[in-house]
Amino acid sequence: MTLRTYKVDPKLDLVLDRVIDVPKELVWKAWTNPEYLKKWFSPKPWQTTDCRIDLRAGGEFYTEMQSPEGQKFPGSGCILEVIPNERLVWTSALLPDYRPQGPAPENAKECSAMAFTCVLTLVTKGKGTHYTAHVMHGNVEQTKAHEKMGFHEGWGTCLDQLVAYVKTWK
Amino acid sequence: MTLRTYKVDPKLDLVLDRVIDVPKELVWKAWTNPEYLKKWFSPKPWQTTDCRIDLRAGGEFYTEMQSPEGQKFPGSGCILEVIPNERLVWTSALLPDYRPQGPAPENAKECSAMAFTCVLTLVTKGKGTHYTAHVMHGNVEQTKAHEKMGFHEGWGTCLDQLVAYVKTWK
Repeated sequence: MTLRTYKVDPKLDLVLDRVIDVPKELVWKAWTNPEYLKKWFSPKPWQTTDCRIDLRAGGEFYTEMQSPEGQKFPGSGCILEVIPNERLVWTSALLPDYRPQGPAPENAKECSAMAFTCVLTLVTKGKGTHYTAHVMHGNVEQTKAHEKMGFHEGWGTCLDQLVAYVKTWK
Repeated sequence: MTLRTYKVDPKLDLVLDRVIDVPKELVWKAWTNPEYLKKWFSPKPWQTTDCRIDLRAGGEFYTEMQSPEGQKFPGSGCILEVIPNERLVWTSALLPDYRPQGPAPENAKECSAMAFTCVLTLVTKGKGTHYTAHVMHGNVEQTKAHEKMGFHEGWGTCLDQLVAYVKTWK
């Protein structure tokens, strides 16, 4: 089966594109099992303190992050596409069962107000994986804000954590 | 196959639930073919002047409505679930390929700023169809605004138009 190509819009999208030395089946497990995801999903010293994943189109993708000071940031999103070991698409713009998110409260932190869709694509590359996280936004302001928040460092650090974690399985 | 049940939240959802005397296969055709949809989708004297439907999860659901004064209101949404003759789910909260909508411009009309997800369900009832349009919102304010804009009259009138139109096919 050929994976559908999602076109990258350089003005609206941020992309983490890297080849990693672990097989895609392990990456998939780390991304789709809540207990595993909690181990790597937030850049330390942040933690992921709770997670729920209902792995189907329309299912919940819920994470709760905790800052080093102990403040919690829960976020519920919606899964859109599931192709085991190859593709996971989810969005923070919808709640489970495709309900639109309510507008962010006035006092929300920047990161809570961020609406994005993540297209994760995993392709076998030798003994490793070509890993692409394509993150789409709705306008240039949100894209720039996400980049400024440290998208590349943040998602990159988390991917390092994922790789290190799944290597402990061997 | 059993259709998944989407739970109605009475505070956040608006529902048009009616039995109509045309078969679901014709209703489906009227909803999913742009040329047919244009005939009934806007309550007269409003018109639907353009429409594009890419009938797949992630595909475009685009309509352009025109007021009696000639003002045009284009709107692009995203299709989420397609079960031929039985269920169509689409949302105005996402653009095609699941990209989040940008925030509505400050000067947008109320209806353009409305984020909702429509779960259309068609079940055979005798020689007709049990027709349910379940429209989900993200917060109470938007639900009330949609109701006040005339949800029940508007969607009801359009359904009357749909039924009258498909009867001309016989």
